[in-house]
Amino acid sequence: MTAISTHIVPIELGERSYKIHIGTGLIADASTFQNLPKASSVMVVSNTTVAPVYARQLLTALSQPYATVHLVELPDGEQHKNWETLNLIFDALLGHACDRKTLVVALGGGVVGDMAGFAAACFMRGVPFVQIPTTLLSQVDSSVGGKTGINHPMGKNMVGAFYQPLQVVCDIDTLSSLPQREISAGLAEIIKYGPIADMEFFTWIERNIDALLQRDASALAYAIRRSCEIKAHVVGQDEREGGLRAILNFGHTFGHAIEAGMGYGAWLHGEAVGCGMVMAAQLSHQLGLIDSAFVDRLRTLIVRAGLKVAGPVLDAKDNAGRYLELMRHDKKAEAGEIRFVVINESSQASMQTAPDAMVRNVIDMCCTP
Amino acid sequence: MTAISTHIVPIELGERSYKIHIGTGLIADASTFQNLPKASSVMVVSNTTVAPVYARQLLTALSQPYATVHLVELPDGEQHKNWETLNLIFDALLGHACDRKTLVVALGGGVVGDMAGFAAACFMRGVPFVQIPTTLLSQVDSSVGGKTGINHPMGKNMVGAFYQPLQVVCDIDTLSSLPQREISAGLAEIIKYGPIADMEFFTWIERNIDALLQRDASALAYAIRRSCEIKAHVVGQDEREGGLRAILNFGHTFGHAIEAGMGYGAWLHGEAVGCGMVMAAQLSHQLGLIDSAFVDRLRTLIVRAGLKVAGPVLDAKDNAGRYLELMRHDKKAEAGEIRFVVINESSQASMQTAPDAMVRNVIDMCCTP
Repeated sequence: MTAISTHIVPIELGERSYKIHIGTGLIADASTFQNLPKASSVMVVSNTTVAPVYARQLLTALSQPYATVHLVELPDGEQHKNWETLNLIFDALLGHACDRKTLVVALGGGVVGDMAGFAAACFMRGVPFVQIPTTLLSQVDSSVGGKTGINHPMGKNMVGAFYQPLQVVCDIDTLSSLPQREISAGLAEIIKYGPIADMEFFTWIERNIDALLQRDASALAYAIRRSCEIKAHVVGQDEREGGLRAILNFGHTFGHAIEAGMGYGAWLHGEAVGCGMVMAAQLSHQLGLIDSAFVDRLRTLIVRAGLKVAGPVLDAKDNAGRYLELMRHDKKAEAGEIRFVVINESSQASMQTAPDAMVRNVIDMCCTP
Repeated sequence: MTAISTHIVPIELGERSYKIHIGTGLIADASTFQNLPKASSVMVVSNTTVAPVYARQLLTALSQPYATVHLVELPDGEQHKNWETLNLIFDALLGHACDRKTLVVALGGGVVGDMAGFAAACFMRGVPFVQIPTTLLSQVDSSVGGKTGINHPMGKNMVGAFYQPLQVVCDIDTLSSLPQREISAGLAEIIKYGPIADMEFFTWIERNIDALLQRDASALAYAIRRSCEIKAHVVGQDEREGGLRAILNFGHTFGHAIEAGMGYGAWLHGEAVGCGMVMAAQLSHQLGLIDSAFVDRLRTLIVRAGLKVAGPVLDAKDNAGRYLELMRHDKKAEAGEIRFVVINESSQASMQTAPDAMVRNVIDMCCTP
């Protein structure tokens, strides 16, 4: 990638504040890690796909400030985001006699970050944590918010913790080895920040979608930076997801139903969110909040990003019923009532319930038979 | 038990402040729970020993403010304080479609409290939690501090979270069904607060040890209250165990070695701490901090409480070496250096390292061949 200058996004969370470094060549540069606390050891958590490509340069950079640097490689994939895999991290930490000051560093996508972060939150009731997201999705999504966790057979991310990292490093170089499908999946979460918060940014994405797909370093860096800024602004007002923060889940209620219904891993999270946003926009239209032209505009951009806009059929007999059933089990549901994130024309998002008949209608309209 | 008036100990932790209710007849009294947040459901977590005795009256009291009350019974014992058992709680919560506002109530001893609290901390990244400790040890120890967690095959409480309850209810009535061995184990933690913080309280325990052993409600209520007050004072200054809070681990470094070396469950935690305090006092004496008369005074009280004061032999060939090995793996160790809590004549406790030869000598003196 063409080298670009590093940009820092500060995340203001009182005593849990930290900085996101966005740039090129960051992983291999020991100075990236110069302001972290002292410790006798570091545990880098990665997976069998990412570690062979990036672990060596990271371990070399970390071995300047830290005496002992360990690596644990997890199996790759959402289907491994469970207790058994999490326990591999605990086994490694205890097997290497790590202590309460050991720094845990996540090197990988969202699954690695969620599991390494949850392990850091729980190991000896909390050790320091640094996140190096290596996918576009995790750079714009997991960099801010402190959400960590694992899946349960009965639901995604059902077991976890809010745990803030000491630092996040978004090295654009890592995106060069990413499959195109994952670039598109990441763009879904980037596009999301338009309708819920900033239509100027949405227009910028429309103009720059080709540069982003071609992995132009400057375009990617700007998109990551702006996404992190918007998310930070929302999270800063609602760290523990009491209310406002829920708007970040635009497209996620339908998206989670797609992920769960297809079996975790069949659709990438970003792909499900991309399709889920079209469904949530359609619902917003049915509720009279936006006109159909905006639904079309959003759908067009999602298609240009290389993403699917038609929902999968989850049940041949009662497809809408299956979606509803899955959505009622969503974490955001309360007492079985589904709370949808809807949008209006002024890029304001809000939480709303909707009649089952209307939701069924939206699902029928948006799913390919 | 003779009814006594309820005493409230406030625990001041900013926005995480809560109250400990100490008294008789509390579990069966719906007014005990009148100030808790609204929720559509409650999940009571107990075990197969405690639930048959106390669950029904608790469920009845809770069903006044709450529409739906569920119960999950865990297998009883420290050997079940692991992920498999924790997962029974998640299975129950998800199986009953519980949500983010569901109140988790722990009804049982330290193991139930630690697991229910950790489940509450992790379920959907945190749901409200109430603790009803039913053993003397958990009433004086788990009521304050917010420590939750499970064991790992390589160490006790290695995986967990700091998570504060909304309320703690210490119902003295529950102590009437406790085996005598567990009364003694609880007294070990009560005795602990003397040498580390309050020798007047120590003298009070010496005078009232027989009443405590005979389960006099007033004596127990005072001992629980004073223990919680002292612990609250320490924890209030150091919620996350940065420094001062470590003095609460007086006797625990040796004690954990006994528990781990004998296999968890062979010695009760309080029994191991009782014996560990004698060893830690002996070490304090060797370091010149207290005279031998105080070691004898502490040993005498621990014997009167019905506890063992001679450490078990963990390895016939190199017993002291085995203790040292186990202590180096303790959570409080840093880079393999063991940090002991030692005491001086003015009931001030501090953290200190000690030469291996001195520690070996203490172990040799204190263990029965």
